Amino acid sequence: MTRKEIHVISNGKQPLEEFAQCARLILSDVDYFHVREKQLSAKQLSDGIDILLQHGIPAEKIVVNDRVDVAAVRNVAGVQLAYHSLKVNEVKQRFPELKIGKSVHSIEEAIDAERLGADYVLYGHIFTSKSKPDVTPRGIRQLEALVNEVSIPVIAIGGITPFNVESVMSAGARGVAIMSGILEAEDPLSMIKLYKNGG
Amino acid sequence: MTRKEIHVISNGKQPLEEFAQCARLILSDVDYFHVREKQLSAKQLSDGIDILLQHGIPAEKIVVNDRVDVAAVRNVAGVQLAYHSLKVNEVKQRFPELKIGKSVHSIEEAIDAERLGADYVLYGHIFTSKSKPDVTPRGIRQLEALVNEVSIPVIAIGGITPFNVESVMSAGARGVAIMSGILEAEDPLSMIKLYKNGG
Repeated sequence: MTRKEIHVISNGKQPLEEFAQCARLILSDVDYFHVREKQLSAKQLSDGIDILLQHGIPAEKIVVNDRVDVAAVRNVAGVQLAYHSLKVNEVKQRFPELKIGKSVHSIEEAIDAERLGADYVLYGHIFTSKSKPDVTPRGIRQLEALVNEVSIPVIAIGGITPFNVESVMSAGARGVAIMSGILEAEDPLSMIKLYKNGG
Repeated sequence: MTRKEIHVISNGKQPLEEFAQCARLILSDVDYFHVREKQLSAKQLSDGIDILLQHGIPAEKIVVNDRVDVAAVRNVAGVQLAYHSLKVNEVKQRFPELKIGKSVHSIEEAIDAERLGADYVLYGHIFTSKSKPDVTPRGIRQLEALVNEVSIPVIAIGGITPFNVESVMSAGARGVAIMSGILEAEDPLSMIKLYKNGG
């Protein structure tokens, strides 16, 4: 069985204290924790990273969404860039120490992200998900087509459950990103094991 | 007459294209143009800097509010940090090339900013201003007291007009920051001359 890379993304609603408590429970089974809190200021994000560190989440497992400056001064693993963020190549050049993930929604965007120096792409959403109920999911075929066009890792996101995670991996994804599937689980530890080992 | 340092700050309402047109008119009389557009994404701020550059505003005269990453990748003069921003010392250490201004509202905050490495403080508001009609202005005496407690330059902001600018300078400010006084003026060039030479 291929090793799955697992990213867990904060949902912008839960206090980061709760996110950190959940993260601590599932720490050894997760590769990266994304702090994705668009409503927070730089100071609040920085304070949130402190909370994660205090709960024993190592900086090497922390990714900050959009705010490259916060990621850089706090020496965390990387940044997740979106359409509204700075350009991948600009960030790569000025912050070579940061791992750069780019969120993409098409094959063209993924090819572009790779060309500009992204370390991986986050692609989705694959299945219907609670966070984007009105958007048509892209599905496994599109994921497979995208994986074939880039050589950097593709992390799949959107509606991924323990029951469909193997289909995503079979399509060539390096791993999956999970939000509500873990954060809203009654027993996050059992749940993450199901994601890792299949449901 | 002491040379006044003049900062002009975008108002978050005007399109940056208009701000750039105004900036171009008054370019030789202004030391720094602050892009302070809290509602804009990193990409939009970066595009806004392009607009300023295209209008002939040199990068050495551009300051970005809060977004240190945007300032760094675009190689502009500096950043203006507020309470909700990253800490002055963290920014100073990781981005030594950036000039760091800190917005302060008390003597204690100004002393703290200097201790942490700020290159200057922006203090206000000094007089009643349209942008903060409900806040009691700090006045000239407080400004004078603050100037006496720090050795870094103090830039005064808030309700400053060509008619009170000399009182601000006499209190020991290095200069003034202006927003509506210039941006909403019918003739920005004549107005900036009044600010420089007294009304």
